[in-house]
Amino acid sequence: MTKGTDSSSRGSFDLSRFLAARTEAVNRALDHFLPAAKVRPATIHRAMRYSLFAGGKRMRPALCLAAAAACGGSEADAMPLACAVECIHTYSLIHDDLPGMDNDDYRRGKLTNHKVFGVGIAVLAGDALLTQAFEVAAQCQSRPRYSHQEIILELARAAGSLQLVAGQVADLEAEGKRISASQLRYIHERKTAALLCCSVRLGGMSANCTPAQLEALTDFGYHVGLAFQVIDDILDVTQTSEKLGKTAGKDSQAQKATYPSIVGLEKSRNLARDLTQRAFAALKPFGGQAAALEALAQFLLKRDR
Amino acid sequence: MTKGTDSSSRGSFDLSRFLAARTEAVNRALDHFLPAAKVRPATIHRAMRYSLFAGGKRMRPALCLAAAAACGGSEADAMPLACAVECIHTYSLIHDDLPGMDNDDYRRGKLTNHKVFGVGIAVLAGDALLTQAFEVAAQCQSRPRYSHQEIILELARAAGSLQLVAGQVADLEAEGKRISASQLRYIHERKTAALLCCSVRLGGMSANCTPAQLEALTDFGYHVGLAFQVIDDILDVTQTSEKLGKTAGKDSQAQKATYPSIVGLEKSRNLARDLTQRAFAALKPFGGQAAALEALAQFLLKRDR
Repeated sequence: MTKGTDSSSRGSFDLSRFLAARTEAVNRALDHFLPAAKVRPATIHRAMRYSLFAGGKRMRPALCLAAAAACGGSEADAMPLACAVECIHTYSLIHDDLPGMDNDDYRRGKLTNHKVFGVGIAVLAGDALLTQAFEVAAQCQSRPRYSHQEIILELARAAGSLQLVAGQVADLEAEGKRISASQLRYIHERKTAALLCCSVRLGGMSANCTPAQLEALTDFGYHVGLAFQVIDDILDVTQTSEKLGKTAGKDSQAQKATYPSIVGLEKSRNLARDLTQRAFAALKPFGGQAAALEALAQFLLKRDR
Repeated sequence: MTKGTDSSSRGSFDLSRFLAARTEAVNRALDHFLPAAKVRPATIHRAMRYSLFAGGKRMRPALCLAAAAACGGSEADAMPLACAVECIHTYSLIHDDLPGMDNDDYRRGKLTNHKVFGVGIAVLAGDALLTQAFEVAAQCQSRPRYSHQEIILELARAAGSLQLVAGQVADLEAEGKRISASQLRYIHERKTAALLCCSVRLGGMSANCTPAQLEALTDFGYHVGLAFQVIDDILDVTQTSEKLGKTAGKDSQAQKATYPSIVGLEKSRNLARDLTQRAFAALKPFGGQAAALEALAQFLLKRDR
């Protein structure tokens, strides 16, 4: 294997094949873990499945499974945890789209849950998916180093009022206000990085990883999560600029603070580059076993749309 | 102790003292488990605490602690589970009160969460309390017969789309419709009995109860839960009748089906009596150790308001 450019050495891993296979496996597992759509009361199970199978990219489950592989674990052992984080992610989107929150009618080109099922059922579908996440996670095998207690605490803390919910609250409160770069980082760390980081950590835990491996995965997950969000902010501005000939993107129209709007485009690009480098550096100890994780990070961080 | 009437033999247990002491202990434990009100983001912790400390009677924690005592367990071992069920109960009330659900402005004479903090924060406060329930439950000690895995599964199933959420969905869908007695029972079994039953089962599990004891507690919890709801329905009609001189109560005004409206007052009273007897019968195997449980059931089922 030549060590020419980053992309040629990483290009040897067939990411689209990996993603297609993992997405199918995750979808099958989610279908297995959730009550069937016809199970009474059918409305709630249809509503849960509507959003869970709405074409999400399954990036969090993929990161979880790839982290397990990096630590020599199996897909089967990581799968309940991969499904649990996807249930949490989906619940947070359903509630985030509600009137009183972001009030969105569409997500990924499909009507949002509350537009199809009404606000009451959408609230309950989110509640049920959040609850389901813990039921699914509890069905994993415990490991010598990681008990069910630790696994449930890991998931609950990432989703709770100091992390994921904290990010949503701070995001809600920041709307229409001028905020500082450190306040924006606070939001992104919790709203995006916390669950991404939890996904890779849980993957490692399912593989009975060493404390040093868990630390490296934490480092990786945190920087991937933050970099992902900074890049998202940059693309929101640059894409729109190129396509519409103006600098105002979707986020700035919605009066949401972004990195470019606070520190400028140049500094945002430097920050994204720095965070991305740190994410890749964190994978060094895993060597070739981290091929899938590295390719996923490549995919998330080197994208142009 | 004389075995004269039911009330004289049960009267020997000082329930108000038991309830006052347990309520104080539960409040202290909840205060310990939840992030302080000033912890960032302060809004969410203030909102969670607003509803959690809004004067609830702590019946579910009391049942959980009393069930542990009936099986020879300690208050300390049952406390995380008692707090977890109260977090679930409170989250379900916050979401139930939302516009799009019951749309209530007041609960127990205080403004509902969304009237104080807005809909967005109320949704998130419910989400955070539901998540917190699992974080708190996971902090219990496992028992030789009951692992953390079983305890988390117990809680998640009682709160999930086949039980608590199922009851809320069926209740929402039944509003303004004519439903059968069996449909009403389906709602009450899930909306009320499931979490009450889970509360006593978790109490027993924290005390490492035998399978036979767990079965007796399940039997007790189920019948207490259902009887509680039937009695609630009866009081809604009879109280209003006596006080306002008309038979239409709050539930029938809100077009909610009740037992009296479906099977009549006479049959409802017979049903309540039958369910109550079954609840008390389930406690026989525990003998004197079930004094607190028996007094609690007495309090819940022999009330006139």
